[in-house]
Amino acid sequence: MPQNQQILLDNRPQGEAVASNFKLVVSETPALNEGEVLVRHHYLSLDPYMRGRMNDAKSYAQPQPLGQVMQGGTVGEVVESRSPKFAVGDKVVGMGGWQEYSVVPADQAGMLRKVDTTHVPLSHYLGAVGMPGVTAWYGLVKIIDPKPGQTVVVSAASGAVGSALGALAKARGCRAVGLAGGPDKCRYVTEELGFDACVDYKQHQDAYSLSKALREAAPNGVDGLFENVGGMCLDAVMLRMNAFARIAMCGMIAGYDGQPIPMAYPQLILVNRMKVEGFIVSEHMEVWPEALKELGMLVGSGKLRPRESVAEGLASAPEAFLGMLKGRNFGKQLVKLI
Amino acid sequence: MPQNQQILLDNRPQGEAVASNFKLVVSETPALNEGEVLVRHHYLSLDPYMRGRMNDAKSYAQPQPLGQVMQGGTVGEVVESRSPKFAVGDKVVGMGGWQEYSVVPADQAGMLRKVDTTHVPLSHYLGAVGMPGVTAWYGLVKIIDPKPGQTVVVSAASGAVGSALGALAKARGCRAVGLAGGPDKCRYVTEELGFDACVDYKQHQDAYSLSKALREAAPNGVDGLFENVGGMCLDAVMLRMNAFARIAMCGMIAGYDGQPIPMAYPQLILVNRMKVEGFIVSEHMEVWPEALKELGMLVGSGKLRPRESVAEGLASAPEAFLGMLKGRNFGKQLVKLI
Repeated sequence: MPQNQQILLDNRPQGEAVASNFKLVVSETPALNEGEVLVRHHYLSLDPYMRGRMNDAKSYAQPQPLGQVMQGGTVGEVVESRSPKFAVGDKVVGMGGWQEYSVVPADQAGMLRKVDTTHVPLSHYLGAVGMPGVTAWYGLVKIIDPKPGQTVVVSAASGAVGSALGALAKARGCRAVGLAGGPDKCRYVTEELGFDACVDYKQHQDAYSLSKALREAAPNGVDGLFENVGGMCLDAVMLRMNAFARIAMCGMIAGYDGQPIPMAYPQLILVNRMKVEGFIVSEHMEVWPEALKELGMLVGSGKLRPRESVAEGLASAPEAFLGMLKGRNFGKQLVKLI
Repeated sequence: MPQNQQILLDNRPQGEAVASNFKLVVSETPALNEGEVLVRHHYLSLDPYMRGRMNDAKSYAQPQPLGQVMQGGTVGEVVESRSPKFAVGDKVVGMGGWQEYSVVPADQAGMLRKVDTTHVPLSHYLGAVGMPGVTAWYGLVKIIDPKPGQTVVVSAASGAVGSALGALAKARGCRAVGLAGGPDKCRYVTEELGFDACVDYKQHQDAYSLSKALREAAPNGVDGLFENVGGMCLDAVMLRMNAFARIAMCGMIAGYDGQPIPMAYPQLILVNRMKVEGFIVSEHMEVWPEALKELGMLVGSGKLRPRESVAEGLASAPEAFLGMLKGRNFGKQLVKLI
């Protein structure tokens, strides 16, 4: 049995999350029971939602249990199988967690999915052609539901969700406008991802200033917002929204450490007869096949060229995760294990 | 031609609205052209939305023009007619404004509606069986869309919209919970209007305290909120909302004088996968017949017993209006002109 490095949640953050919240341990991988497979992880996914689960607070998901392996998405290869559904060598995506190997009851529906790496690199199944991509798809198609010519804004535009959102919006004939932090990310958003404009929110101290910059990026106002950040970004975009605009509320990374992030102008929801809707993509499994098909084609055809920040080795996961929460990543944050 | 007292908007509020924003004038009613009728107003309606229109700000409606008669709903009687559609003596509801008489181009659709006062007193066509009632109906039926047994909360519960909301929610098998200011209003909300519970928000200094009180009034959490007030009331109810809850955003009277009214916890929209939707009832004329029919039956059968605050004489309109904005009215605020 191979040795298995694992990262546990050792204690919960007091305010900001820190490296000492995590703990690296080594265990043996257990022998397989009938129906199980052993997966060796090639990449693990780091996602903002994990920060919310580190708190012991009421949220949509159960909190991450203390003393257990951090949960999260993984891609890898089957290295041992006692399931007729999977063969050694199969490339698979699952929820293996922050560890090098996982034992998966492969007969249970939804635990493990075989993927084809002919046109799509394995790692992208954790990003553009995975949960983040489907997240963008659901918010755009099912909540924002834009018409051709309408303007759609996404915050954290260079990230895994934002980059997919831009490609999906362009495919629907929309004007895609991003918010991102810093000139490098903004350049990538317009030049590589094909957004029509991108505003560097770090150049602005308050929502009014950011809102003014948005006036040029979105001269016809904003019809849809896909919100990943909250706080000043949300306020600034709301000030530019048109009548009957829609907001898909996906994340509020600005408040993950417990900072207050009030919405400054809720009266705009009334004045502009807006619809604001929160969602969690795992509650809408029915859209995944359709969404993954479109996302796979966008990546396969080169219309969506997602960028990745790759940390090396399991031990680097905590620092990479904390950096991502501060916006230090550039594109989808992964940890490469092999 | 009779003399016609009128109240004009003389100047726009700087912050709080004051009596000197208005001006009383007297004019002659003009001779009628073909197709016009002269209506003598019995009651005029005072509604919170009018405060928003006094500002020269972007809103859903054009601002109230300066130097012109304050616009608003009226009920009255046709006293002269050059239209085949209306006879002298007809009781009518329209948008006659803050004046004793109005000349109405009665041939234009939607300008004037004949009403039956056999089972419903004329004044109620400005309240429970009029715009405020339909407002409650739309928000409840089309946005909150509650299932039997779910809990629905409304702020300003003793008012024209709130009282209708309670009756409509009870008719659908819901638990109806009100927020109102002061023990008299709360007693009326439960004893006369049939709400299951009512919380006196004036007994609470902050959203957490109010939210605790709501825990007893809504022991199974809140599935739908019809929001008329904003600020602390909105925050407190949001803290008690269940997964997949809906908020119909109808008014934010707490911010009508320009006070900041941030929404403290927008992350709850995400955590609870809520839907928040703003609306204006005049944009949904298609629901009016169905809504007015149900509201008329609720009033006619005594299941909805709306209360009215009646000021006497046109000159009293400004003070009555300003008092209503401070919550000094009790039920639908009217001005009786005859």
